[in-house]
Amino acid sequence: MKRTLGEIARHLGGTLVGDEGLEVQGVNALDLAGPEEISFYSDPRYRRALEKTRAGALITAERLDDFRGAQIVVDNPGLAYTLAAGLFAPAVPRFPGVSHDAFVHESATLGEGVSIYPRAYVGAGAEIGDEVILFPGVFVGDRVRIGAGSVLYPNVTVLGGCLLGRNVILHAGTVVGADGFGFVRDGARSVKVPQLGIVQIDDDCEIGANSCIDRAAFGKTWIRRGVKTDNLVQVGHNVVIGEDTIIVAQAGISGSVKVGREAIIGGQVGIRDHVEIGDRVMIASQSGVAKSIPEGRIVSGSPTMPHRVWLKTTGLIPRLPRLFDRLRTLEKRVETLEQDMRER
Amino acid sequence: MKRTLGEIARHLGGTLVGDEGLEVQGVNALDLAGPEEISFYSDPRYRRALEKTRAGALITAERLDDFRGAQIVVDNPGLAYTLAAGLFAPAVPRFPGVSHDAFVHESATLGEGVSIYPRAYVGAGAEIGDEVILFPGVFVGDRVRIGAGSVLYPNVTVLGGCLLGRNVILHAGTVVGADGFGFVRDGARSVKVPQLGIVQIDDDCEIGANSCIDRAAFGKTWIRRGVKTDNLVQVGHNVVIGEDTIIVAQAGISGSVKVGREAIIGGQVGIRDHVEIGDRVMIASQSGVAKSIPEGRIVSGSPTMPHRVWLKTTGLIPRLPRLFDRLRTLEKRVETLEQDMRER
Amino acid sequence: MKRTLGEIARHLGGTLVGDEGLEVQGVNALDLAGPEEISFYSDPRYRRALEKTRAGALITAERLDDFRGAQIVVDNPGLAYTLAAGLFAPAVPRFPGVSHDAFVHESATLGEGVSIYPRAYVGAGAEIGDEVILFPGVFVGDRVRIGAGSVLYPNVTVLGGCLLGRNVILHAGTVVGADGFGFVRDGARSVKVPQLGIVQIDDDCEIGANSCIDRAAFGKTWIRRGVKTDNLVQVGHNVVIGEDTIIVAQAGISGSVKVGREAIIGGQVGIRDHVEIGDRVMIASQSGVAKSIPEGRIVSGSPTMPHRVWLKTTGLIPRLPRLFDRLRTLEKRVETLEQDMRER
Repeated sequence: MKRTLGEIARHLGGTLVGDEGLEVQGVNALDLAGPEEISFYSDPRYRRALEKTRAGALITAERLDDFRGAQIVVDNPGLAYTLAAGLFAPAVPRFPGVSHDAFVHESATLGEGVSIYPRAYVGAGAEIGDEVILFPGVFVGDRVRIGAGSVLYPNVTVLGGCLLGRNVILHAGTVVGADGFGFVRDGARSVKVPQLGIVQIDDDCEIGANSCIDRAAFGKTWIRRGVKTDNLVQVGHNVVIGEDTIIVAQAGISGSVKVGREAIIGGQVGIRDHVEIGDRVMIASQSGVAKSIPEGRIVSGSPTMPHRVWLKTTGLIPRLPRLFDRLRTLEKRVETLEQDMRER
Repeated sequence: MKRTLGEIARHLGGTLVGDEGLEVQGVNALDLAGPEEISFYSDPRYRRALEKTRAGALITAERLDDFRGAQIVVDNPGLAYTLAAGLFAPAVPRFPGVSHDAFVHESATLGEGVSIYPRAYVGAGAEIGDEVILFPGVFVGDRVRIGAGSVLYPNVTVLGGCLLGRNVILHAGTVVGADGFGFVRDGARSVKVPQLGIVQIDDDCEIGANSCIDRAAFGKTWIRRGVKTDNLVQVGHNVVIGEDTIIVAQAGISGSVKVGREAIIGGQVGIRDHVEIGDRVMIASQSGVAKSIPEGRIVSGSPTMPHRVWLKTTGLIPRLPRLFDRLRTLEKRVETLEQDMRER
Repeated sequence: MKRTLGEIARHLGGTLVGDEGLEVQGVNALDLAGPEEISFYSDPRYRRALEKTRAGALITAERLDDFRGAQIVVDNPGLAYTLAAGLFAPAVPRFPGVSHDAFVHESATLGEGVSIYPRAYVGAGAEIGDEVILFPGVFVGDRVRIGAGSVLYPNVTVLGGCLLGRNVILHAGTVVGADGFGFVRDGARSVKVPQLGIVQIDDDCEIGANSCIDRAAFGKTWIRRGVKTDNLVQVGHNVVIGEDTIIVAQAGISGSVKVGREAIIGGQVGIRDHVEIGDRVMIASQSGVAKSIPEGRIVSGSPTMPHRVWLKTTGLIPRLPRLFDRLRTLEKRVETLEQDMRER
């Protein structure tokens, strides 16, 4: 598939410097792009790649004098480039219609244009929206509802009663709606607390591969519109994640945590149960959150502290041995002084 | 399904204050329960929810004067509530019998009342106990034995030769019996150590979603009765976990570790290989365990220290910059003193 | 299956002390081995097990006077033992041929002697090499190529276009080729960056269960020959892992990281995006890597420091409360001295 630079510039709302009839056949990184591809430049870290690039055209925030090819100048090159890539990206491959090797319960409802691969399973009373794609090995439990345009990649499990909005993407191996981790001790033994709620994932969410989002004990675990998670993320029962929040790989969020909107939770972060994370909070990777965090804060460490404090302290840890030495030396000097003082 | 308060009070062995013929149709959290539901109160954190609850009845440890509905007074409201919830909890949905879309090897043995969904696989010589449920996508390897009443959720894998006891629950996507991680270096290359053992999971265990329990190099990796793990937990080869121990999400237990009974291993904890964790040890989340821990200890940190020491130290970390300043100031003052002393 | 000691000694290139016609029927650990089994001894930690072992023969680095059975003396007992175990290890169980319950696209190419279990899925244009085994629930996407001798365990997902070399092992539940985690903000909203590249896994790699290796944004995420990963490992888009590197369970490697050859990355380690890890670097478990690490370094901590520094500092953390006390005491003593000095 080829597109002209004029077509692309219009799609991006950018200013074209160069031949608008020139055709490119794809997007690529600076160091990989060839003369028939368009790339982008915005980060000075890639200055050297820019000098050597063979790209035929470039998306950029300001006109670059030392680049000879065509340029499309835009406000936000990263975003523009992403939109350009979308013009060329291959569609998710669809099985034509409903495979006769899939299991679809007779009481399930299927929308227009659904693609159900062999070996998918759709339970009783499930409702599958228009254009939904269910890959092989997908399990859709009884009474699950999936909104239009959603894609469930291979071996995804969505257990009974859970709700997915429109344009939700669940990557391979992810489990939605397993029982929350709730037990009550009866002496030494653990008695299972029935997990009676569901998971609700709203429109435009994307959940990474092999992640787990547990069903609520009551009511719902709620992933709100536009949340994106990376792989191997754990979300406990009754958690609420606010709109447009981002959760990086291997983070774990304990039961009943509430996270605000547009927050960023770093990789391998752990958040203890029942705390509240405000809107736009940023939590550095590997942090351990033991207390609620007000809106807009940036925190690091385990347990967390303000990020600017963490920046000051973290370099001091390797200097602790020297600190102990200095303190010991000082104690001796003071002792000598005290002795001298007494002897006068 | 409705149940009378009298019926529930008898089931819980509690004292009913109110009309024993009153019917409720479910359990629910204080803030969600309606007039036809029963809730519970035991934690003062929920005092405000108690004041506003619309619940028709309450399970509680002592009679509450300011609650107008019926009350069932019990010793342990959390446990009682859990048992009450069990009265209303829907059963795990069963496929009627053995689906003709499942693969069951001719040499496998099936107990009474098994439920084998479409797309499950049962290998040669496997023995499936009475009332077992195998969801779609479950793989049961050759010679695997599964005790009565166990439930394997979708896309669970149990590899050849592994043994599951009675009433074991494996949540979706969990892998039991993958090869332990064992290699010997031959120069730079890694030579695989054959993993010849099995995994044995005893009665009443519950393993969270997308977890991994590796087979032993020899003998067995052994999960003993009543162990409960959360999601995304890693258990290495030849590990033994004692009865009724609880392991929270994303914890990782390296090879040949022995954990005692009734221990609690927090979320994202890492335990190095070959150490021993005593009975009833509690390990705080994100801890890193590098040494064995005697019975009954409570530890935190990476590497771990006694929890009470950790409580004292952890608040000091953010004060390190100030500590370094104070030390530097003190050094100058001592230098001044020494100079003064010499000059006299 | 039985083998004579003579046969085993020749296979290992070792020196036999004892009856070369003696037959053993397997290998086992010192404490589990019986008279018809061969074990090995090399680590003094197992001295007591050696004294009590009932093993009929032993692989050892030097002749042991206090062991009465036969001995095979070799340079590297661990490696020799592993090779001996390989003589007895059962082969991976093969489904005979291609199950008619598998889905194989008509345009896929199958090599000689492939074993494709029921419920496996092979997409359009896929090329499956000789002797490859695809277990139930495996998904092989369109145009995927898998080299000869590779084994994909149950419920593994390999998405479209990815390349696996020869003798690659993917353990159960692992996902290769899910989209990398890339978004660009458009105001608060996250716009998905199309992930147009692939994953390439070279010969002799082994990837643990329920791991995730994401496809590149462009070009490829590249796992080079002989890499071994444990379970639940996360590898982000565009990462390159050098030959023979080892990655322990639950480690996470962010996008565009380059790891050299023969490195060892400990359990639960996190590595931030775009850093470079040199050849033969060793990273202790739970470390957090925020900066590039030159060849051959050994590091620990979060953030990382040289391991020898970490060894010195880590024991000091629990002594911080006492340090603060000593500093306070010293400040008072200095104040007293200063006062004394002024009063003279």
